[in-house]
Amino acid sequence: MKLYDYTRAPNPRRVRIFMAEKGVEIPLETVDLGTDAQFDEAFTRRNPFRTVPVLELDDGTHISESIAICRYLEALYPEPPLFGSTALEQALVEMWSRRAELTGLLHAAEVVRNSIPFFADKALPGVEGGSPQIEALIERGKAGLERFFTAFDKQLENSEFVAGDHYSVADITTQVTIEFAGWRKIGIPDQCKNLARWYQQVSARPSAKA
Amino acid sequence: MKLYDYTRAPNPRRVRIFMAEKGVEIPLETVDLGTDAQFDEAFTRRNPFRTVPVLELDDGTHISESIAICRYLEALYPEPPLFGSTALEQALVEMWSRRAELTGLLHAAEVVRNSIPFFADKALPGVEGGSPQIEALIERGKAGLERFFTAFDKQLENSEFVAGDHYSVADITTQVTIEFAGWRKIGIPDQCKNLARWYQQVSARPSAKA
Repeated sequence: MKLYDYTRAPNPRRVRIFMAEKGVEIPLETVDLGTDAQFDEAFTRRNPFRTVPVLELDDGTHISESIAICRYLEALYPEPPLFGSTALEQALVEMWSRRAELTGLLHAAEVVRNSIPFFADKALPGVEGGSPQIEALIERGKAGLERFFTAFDKQLENSEFVAGDHYSVADITTQVTIEFAGWRKIGIPDQCKNLARWYQQVSARPSAKA
Repeated sequence: MKLYDYTRAPNPRRVRIFMAEKGVEIPLETVDLGTDAQFDEAFTRRNPFRTVPVLELDDGTHISESIAICRYLEALYPEPPLFGSTALEQALVEMWSRRAELTGLLHAAEVVRNSIPFFADKALPGVEGGSPQIEALIERGKAGLERFFTAFDKQLENSEFVAGDHYSVADITTQVTIEFAGWRKIGIPDQCKNLARWYQQVSARPSAKA
């Protein structure tokens, strides 16, 4: 197997943290998003949606989408379970992962991709040109992140991890969302003490170095 | 169990189609989004993110997010498998589900929620006021749907279903995306013959009546 990666980007980092938590090592190959290498013909054949990460299997099959790659690795290396164990745990991990993505990660992306000059005309991932930045999305993203911080702080008031008693892929997405928001110096608000406690805790795990 | 539902909305429909494919019946309770009932205190206790559908278990636990509910039902009623069987199938279903959501359903939502007067100041789901419509998202959504139709048409050229040889939850999300785009009279482009063939086929399944 081989993982097409880009160190700075948030989505490949989700997979690298996941691999570190599983203790799995997979060779990495950099796709230089800094020079738009994801739009190359060769990479487009691997993933026509032109995003990283992509996992290449030994038979040449390609799996894209971070969570799809993580699920494949979960099936290959079930321990420790990062998508929940019982039916209910699995559902709650999926629920909190989705909440982290839809109410957190997507808003962080709105702020980052609509404000940094590098993303001018490619504000949407995987779209080569013709996707202009929309200034109103910066404010929408910031307001969304405020709601996200508040809601996740509340969840972490009575819960050690995002989806309950066990560390899971929902923690990874939440962690990467907070890091991504930090690109534009948006941090956890002072009053969100539970979220800050949790963030310190996950950032101290060895996987945070991935 | 009980499912909090709203007949016209795309996300509850994903779960109802899933249930029909499994042959599972669960009592439905309508949350009238037409009168903003999702913002009521009682419903907010069930889902603080104030979206439908929500599955209520007999012990009072609530699961929100369509795909989280579907996964729970998959664990309870494994046949027929709608999230794939082997590790690779599961990964490819997840990949295509994500592609359908991120490059299809979200763009359809951009068009619908930023153009229909009913959604003024609530262009984002679950956000009560303070989320104004952004006109530029209507065009962005339409351009995104064009790319989505083209990409999924290509996938269906050599594949019976969206994620391969078996009907899956990725087909459900794709089907509902096309229906949702239809709210603004955006249809499958004439040249997308494979997508049209597939859409006719899934629309003829008994579950389409759900």
